Amino acid sequence: MIEKDDKFLSAYMNDRRRIVEEALLHYLKPQDNISSEIHEAVHYSVFAGGKRVRPILCLAAVDATGGNLTQAMPVACALELIHTYSLIHDDLPSMDNDDFRRGKPTNHKVFGEALAILAGDALLTEAFVLLSRAEKIRLPAEGRLQVIQEIAYGAGISGMVGGQALDILSGNLVPDENILTEIHRRKTAALIVASVKAGAILSGAPKGKIDAIADYGENIGMAFQISDDILNVTGDRELMGKETGSDAVLGKLTYPSLLGLDVAKQKLNEYVEAAIDSLAGFDERARPLRLIARYIGKRQA
Amino acid sequence: MIEKDDKFLSAYMNDRRRIVEEALLHYLKPQDNISSEIHEAVHYSVFAGGKRVRPILCLAAVDATGGNLTQAMPVACALELIHTYSLIHDDLPSMDNDDFRRGKPTNHKVFGEALAILAGDALLTEAFVLLSRAEKIRLPAEGRLQVIQEIAYGAGISGMVGGQALDILSGNLVPDENILTEIHRRKTAALIVASVKAGAILSGAPKGKIDAIADYGENIGMAFQISDDILNVTGDRELMGKETGSDAVLGKLTYPSLLGLDVAKQKLNEYVEAAIDSLAGFDERARPLRLIARYIGKRQA
Repeated sequence: MIEKDDKFLSAYMNDRRRIVEEALLHYLKPQDNISSEIHEAVHYSVFAGGKRVRPILCLAAVDATGGNLTQAMPVACALELIHTYSLIHDDLPSMDNDDFRRGKPTNHKVFGEALAILAGDALLTEAFVLLSRAEKIRLPAEGRLQVIQEIAYGAGISGMVGGQALDILSGNLVPDENILTEIHRRKTAALIVASVKAGAILSGAPKGKIDAIADYGENIGMAFQISDDILNVTGDRELMGKETGSDAVLGKLTYPSLLGLDVAKQKLNEYVEAAIDSLAGFDERARPLRLIARYIGKRQA
Repeated sequence: MIEKDDKFLSAYMNDRRRIVEEALLHYLKPQDNISSEIHEAVHYSVFAGGKRVRPILCLAAVDATGGNLTQAMPVACALELIHTYSLIHDDLPSMDNDDFRRGKPTNHKVFGEALAILAGDALLTEAFVLLSRAEKIRLPAEGRLQVIQEIAYGAGISGMVGGQALDILSGNLVPDENILTEIHRRKTAALIVASVKAGAILSGAPKGKIDAIADYGENIGMAFQISDDILNVTGDRELMGKETGSDAVLGKLTYPSLLGLDVAKQKLNEYVEAAIDSLAGFDERARPLRLIARYIGKRQA
């Protein structure tokens, strides 16, 4: 039974990832020959091996609410453009100063800092070009505005950028679970909430369903960040062949570093269960969303 | 008569600037206490003495097409947020590396590079929050989507960011009037086109009027950039008390540096006249737009 779930989820994720890759290639086709460098920089990071988590979650929310996948593609892709912009800017020398991401040189290592900043800016802006142009979206304009609103909000000061600002300044704050939760909620969960809400809005789901999907997003968003932080600890452990302890992750404020690995794992499980509970009113079409939550819970095993 | 025009334009600009300042203060009120640093960084640059050219042009286009100023305010302000983001990122050490702008330390000099990058990102994103939320805009959702589309397009790869990328890479290109025009068209004119088009769309103007206003925007956008470049030359001249020549502006590709000051002034006048010609089908309500074009033509005197 569990093996059957794994197979189903793996096939589902692969299929959705494939259609997202195709759509991204389509949307990122250069419109002219004159600005090839910025297109190259944008292309490099968008196709640098991303797992397409946010587009897949958006499409899974469309599936869960009985919507149309084709018309959701511009929105799913816009979410990936926003996520990619945030990675390019996070990696910059003045931010996390990372030379590699997913085994490849980061954008500024290849194209220089100036073009990397502009490539991030371009991706963020093109996301809104895509969201507002997308002729394929047959949803009434009112719903399309609502989708743009959710995504801008999730990416803005109340969401991702605000969370990133809090994160880089968190070194100056007294470590505290409330602040940590607020950072995760904004930096990671907010755009995931926007991803699944956008999917439900695109399906024309009723408000109750949209709210439930938003709860799901908030919970798996938190779970996703905690499982990443746990993997960083346990990953280091394997890599270095020794116990690095739970507070060794680059001095960053994380659940493992603040509360220890065991409490972090417990929190992770609570968020996964809460995510699945949020979907109580959904039928079998929410199976992918449920299995994705379970999968995030198991990543740290 | 000319004195009367000057007085009218001065009073008009002051009044519009005042309502834009008020609206910006209103929209940029922090929504929480937790992310005060990013709000401070955003606030610092938005209120660092900008002339509000793009919002004023948007409102003048609303006036020219008989629209409602109040409902245009969120759009006018969103344009200023996008312009401010572009200035913050342009000033960064890896870009133009400017320590001062309008006599004040640049954003990264005050808040550090990381927060300056995030403040720019936040401003760009909040512009779309404002454009998609703005409950005041009573325009049908279809028109509001069109406004978002024009602004995202003008700020994106085909517009401002693409122009900025071309500009920083232009040192590697053989100087050429076509490339120079393309850089100006994207870097400066595209967002100005979006500003005036948005105003006309908000008024519910017919397509012919929107197209004419877009022509006006393209022409004064080009004129604005050329007059800035001329002022840089003639300004330097006065500042340094000697003839710096027309190709001395930091080695950047400009009309004065490529074609000389006299040809640049001639081009400027041609764009100003073309801008005014674009408004042939408009009545007396387009007087502010016409006088702004004349004013840009005279800045270099």
